[in-house]
Amino acid sequence: MMQKDSEELMRKIGYEFKNKKYLEKALTHRSYSNEIEKTKRYNNEKLEFLGDAVLNLITTEYIYERYEGKTEGELAKLKSQIISEPVFSSISSDMELGEYLYLSNGEIMSGGRHRKSILGDAFEALIGAIFKDSDYYTAKEVALKFLLNKIDNLEEIEGTGDHKTILQEVVQGKYKKMPEYVLIGTKGPDHDKIFETCVKWNDEVFGVGVGKSKKEAEKNAAKQALEKLSKLKK
Amino acid sequence: MMQKDSEELMRKIGYEFKNKKYLEKALTHRSYSNEIEKTKRYNNEKLEFLGDAVLNLITTEYIYERYEGKTEGELAKLKSQIISEPVFSSISSDMELGEYLYLSNGEIMSGGRHRKSILGDAFEALIGAIFKDSDYYTAKEVALKFLLNKIDNLEEIEGTGDHKTILQEVVQGKYKKMPEYVLIGTKGPDHDKIFETCVKWNDEVFGVGVGKSKKEAEKNAAKQALEKLSKLKK
Repeated sequence: MMQKDSEELMRKIGYEFKNKKYLEKALTHRSYSNEIEKTKRYNNEKLEFLGDAVLNLITTEYIYERYEGKTEGELAKLKSQIISEPVFSSISSDMELGEYLYLSNGEIMSGGRHRKSILGDAFEALIGAIFKDSDYYTAKEVALKFLLNKIDNLEEIEGTGDHKTILQEVVQGKYKKMPEYVLIGTKGPDHDKIFETCVKWNDEVFGVGVGKSKKEAEKNAAKQALEKLSKLKK
Repeated sequence: MMQKDSEELMRKIGYEFKNKKYLEKALTHRSYSNEIEKTKRYNNEKLEFLGDAVLNLITTEYIYERYEGKTEGELAKLKSQIISEPVFSSISSDMELGEYLYLSNGEIMSGGRHRKSILGDAFEALIGAIFKDSDYYTAKEVALKFLLNKIDNLEEIEGTGDHKTILQEVVQGKYKKMPEYVLIGTKGPDHDKIFETCVKWNDEVFGVGVGKSKKEAEKNAAKQALEKLSKLKK
């Protein structure tokens, strides 16, 4: 039930912490710090906040260099597929990061060592901790060792294709606006209705989609908008 | 009508480019590259994409260090207020960045040198260019000179308080989900209707708001959700 020895983890990631406190913090889930509050007052949430931004720059810099021929729209789409819980939790699973985490007994009993949200957050915190312990370029070297393999196999990772989420991140990054979904209308009898929605921002419609539910119609509208954005002349 | 000499800009920002091509690219708006395509095929959109991620990490690292006592929710809110068009375009105005941009004649005639979206994007591209020309820490030094003053005076910058946008970025960063607004109901006669909406994600309601329009009700729901998030125990 105990977490594994973190010395082993450092060998796995190929990085030796100068200040072990950062590593310990990165491995501490809030369930543990809540349970044992008297002795351990910190958890990994702020390092996760920092690590998220570190991984964002690492990924952006990497795809900027590697995919020179792609438009900014294509890069933004790719980026939001990489910087995601499916990818980060998959990396954590590969290195068995869950086995090294400090979790409450309740979390351990309910499968916390394999929960994707906990694993994805812990990878972000781990990279944040390396960044704090060393510098951007060292964190980049460590992170890319794990990221490269995932970037080349994105389509094999479950859950990386949620079009609404990807669209939102792309639009937010490029236009600083939120995409808005508007129901255009419905067709057919009540038990077999077809919904039609559009997605727009800046008063311009970028995609239209139909489906058997509002959700499905919105997903298809988002997909069309992403295709349109990828083709936009740069 | 011509852009100003970029040597002057380098003196203003206190950074001398080793490779002037990066600076030229950062200063080239797509309207210019579209107009004069034969001679100039590049524009600043990809450097803006890169610079956005550089500024994201610079800001995150800075507020992580400076506001040790704040919760992760408070930091996320602060971050999304700083990394915004109002702040970046305000910095660009201070250094008159618009005067150094390559714009099409049409853009110049319609006031492009003072357009906030163009200015905000150009500041991101400029920081991306410095990052490419040197390294993260040099870009950080230059950017912080301009950011610090804005961070201390956020409330004086017009447009930094859009609660729906801030909430979306906070929720996206923390939960990897989109906040969803649901109309609960309306009250009163048609000419004087009051709308009530809630905002939720992960099947949990985080805020409720009322208003004289759906939009106003959603804004108030977002505001309440942000307050709740800031207080969440870490």
